[in-house]
Amino acid sequence: MKSYKEMSKEELLALKADLENAYLDAKGKGLKLDMSRGKPGLSQLDVSMPMLDVINSSSDMKTQLGNDTRNYGDLDGIGECRRLMAAMMSVKKDNVLICGNSSLNIMYDTVSRSMMKGVNGSTPWCKLDKVKFLCPVPGYDRHFKITEYFGIEMVNIPLYDDGPDMDMVEEYVNNDPTVKGIWCVPMYSNPTGISYSDEVVRRFANLQPAAADFRIFWDNAYCVHHLYEDRQDKILNILEECEKAGNPNMVYIFASTSKVTFSGSGVSAVASSLENIEFIMSQMTVQTIGHDKINQLRHARYFKDINGMTEHMKKHANLMRPKFQAVLQVFERGLSGLEIGTWTNPNGGYFISFDAMEGCAKAIVAKCKEAGVVLTGAGATFPYGLDPKDSNIRIAPSFPTPEEMAAAAELFVLCVKLVSIEKLLEKC
Amino acid sequence: MKSYKEMSKEELLALKADLENAYLDAKGKGLKLDMSRGKPGLSQLDVSMPMLDVINSSSDMKTQLGNDTRNYGDLDGIGECRRLMAAMMSVKKDNVLICGNSSLNIMYDTVSRSMMKGVNGSTPWCKLDKVKFLCPVPGYDRHFKITEYFGIEMVNIPLYDDGPDMDMVEEYVNNDPTVKGIWCVPMYSNPTGISYSDEVVRRFANLQPAAADFRIFWDNAYCVHHLYEDRQDKILNILEECEKAGNPNMVYIFASTSKVTFSGSGVSAVASSLENIEFIMSQMTVQTIGHDKINQLRHARYFKDINGMTEHMKKHANLMRPKFQAVLQVFERGLSGLEIGTWTNPNGGYFISFDAMEGCAKAIVAKCKEAGVVLTGAGATFPYGLDPKDSNIRIAPSFPTPEEMAAAAELFVLCVKLVSIEKLLEKC
Repeated sequence: MKSYKEMSKEELLALKADLENAYLDAKGKGLKLDMSRGKPGLSQLDVSMPMLDVINSSSDMKTQLGNDTRNYGDLDGIGECRRLMAAMMSVKKDNVLICGNSSLNIMYDTVSRSMMKGVNGSTPWCKLDKVKFLCPVPGYDRHFKITEYFGIEMVNIPLYDDGPDMDMVEEYVNNDPTVKGIWCVPMYSNPTGISYSDEVVRRFANLQPAAADFRIFWDNAYCVHHLYEDRQDKILNILEECEKAGNPNMVYIFASTSKVTFSGSGVSAVASSLENIEFIMSQMTVQTIGHDKINQLRHARYFKDINGMTEHMKKHANLMRPKFQAVLQVFERGLSGLEIGTWTNPNGGYFISFDAMEGCAKAIVAKCKEAGVVLTGAGATFPYGLDPKDSNIRIAPSFPTPEEMAAAAELFVLCVKLVSIEKLLEKC
Repeated sequence: MKSYKEMSKEELLALKADLENAYLDAKGKGLKLDMSRGKPGLSQLDVSMPMLDVINSSSDMKTQLGNDTRNYGDLDGIGECRRLMAAMMSVKKDNVLICGNSSLNIMYDTVSRSMMKGVNGSTPWCKLDKVKFLCPVPGYDRHFKITEYFGIEMVNIPLYDDGPDMDMVEEYVNNDPTVKGIWCVPMYSNPTGISYSDEVVRRFANLQPAAADFRIFWDNAYCVHHLYEDRQDKILNILEECEKAGNPNMVYIFASTSKVTFSGSGVSAVASSLENIEFIMSQMTVQTIGHDKINQLRHARYFKDINGMTEHMKKHANLMRPKFQAVLQVFERGLSGLEIGTWTNPNGGYFISFDAMEGCAKAIVAKCKEAGVVLTGAGATFPYGLDPKDSNIRIAPSFPTPEEMAAAAELFVLCVKLVSIEKLLEKC
């Protein structure tokens, strides 16, 4: 197809008239689709329904060690669930704490604890004049909301195909003592779907932070969320690499089963060095008497071990793949060669990331919404909701059916074309 | 029986020799009982087992409003669970937020939020030179741990049979702007089991705080935990009283089903004015995407409504009552008239509070432990673990069987006698 950038004003105007008619037709179809969040689809949730039979009124409610999951105790989580989550996170059981239903909540608590009490004895961050976090962009809006809430200054770091710009990360972390953290989604990153290369992970582990209380917030949300059998990413074990590099306390790893079993009714976990775990426990023991151990037991008995979880996630992949492929096919057919947008084709995770021409993202999202398709707000993938290029759009294909997804993608393509033409005409 | 205080030195010495022999015998029995926490007993947990059948793989997972409990959404809790918890807390549904499994965690979060962000727009408490909380004593150690953790200064307020010393509360709250909160367990108080009189609740509601961000932390943990059919306490509705008094935002009410269904696997809730609820939501939306709605559904469908919960709690009462009565009978038979201790006989809740002679509590707890009965550490019922009179001991009869409880109480009585005699002999 001919690139829009090579078209004359007349060609663009003619095309625009056609596309406007097509848009009016599309609006008439009364689409009503929400792709704003990475919500699991119904068929995906159905996959986990048998888990709800695992614990019933005649179940033995004791852990393998004989503790009653119905009563207080086991603040750090029951052994079998710690083992399961440890395997999911590729760490040892003793390095894992099981928490409530939300890994985001653990991240929030971790930042909150650092603000109020410092990190393993450092000055509480709230007592400092300035605290900065590095934010690889585009990234996860919920991470940015946490740091924004606590008044932490966020610094954009470009995210490439193999991870964040490590020259820039090293420059900041190794020289600026106000830099206390970095948000990372190292595998099937939200939203671009890329995974960090071994080289990038090693450079992370070998940082020489100017601040002793600098921490890497390693949100391994999609560690078991492959889309393909034969195209799977694998990342290096950051905890081991940090140990090797003499930085054993530098990383917190977060994960949950929110997108494995049920969103909101899964279990979450944090993994870190024993010293960090002990510090977290010293706060957690004030915060709560314990987390939901019956749900921990339910998860541990349902999956049995990591192999059970791997098999389970293959069923998810079979449901997710057609949705991703529906989008990719429509994009390929409708947009390739036009030079008005690029998009990712990830091996896993929950998102396709689309980069429109500069200054077009907000308008595309608005145009989609007008015709009944709600996308994540443009800018959401950047700190403070500010995409400096107004270019990135996160597409979440998980909730609609493949057919709905194809219809939504068609509309999206139409909107990208229309908005891009308008932008190009401005320059004519 | 003759009061120990009227005995001569010789009488005390003779008695002491007998009691020491009895103590040696008791030690020989190898008791091993833990009464340190208010843990539900096994038979009590069994009462809730049918709840685990309510949700299974063939259940309709939608709320009455049609929302899928397995997916994200309903941050404030599903409607039917909000209604249930609202009825439990005697407030309207819209004034209630459902949270995770732990009301202690909501209290922690509430203090934490106030520290970092202030209260409905006030200066964050962490920016102030001093923040004080009033602590009716004896009280709940976990409350005191939260305020201690955040560096909040705690002020002891005597707790009487009808509630805290309100003259002192008014004096502090109405004049000292550094007083930002007070911990209350208004019904079947932990540990004394008393409930606040209507007069006390009205005086609370009519406080005129020097600090606009002063809040009452009203932990109504035992609101449905009656021990008797015919002896039930009832407290005034603090939220309504605060509204009437023109102080609608002055109170947060907390409750959970930790001691209704399963400790650690229940649901918790906070109730407050709509303005407060909105402020809490503005933080909660950063902290988490949502709580465990499947467990909310499980609870709502199991109880159906507050009547279901009331019937359920009668079964608890039938199991708890014999344990309380076992202790009370042993105390009555072994200690009345001796003038070496007083104890409470509550209408509900989880505890019997024992006041030994001054300077005896630590020694009694140590002596019990030596013979195999673990009690809550002496002093735990006071801020910083410091009981100025070293007198109060909290007895938690819920976990052992009535027979075990009677045996433990016998040992306790023996230890009280021995330690008291030693104390009296010091003065001879």
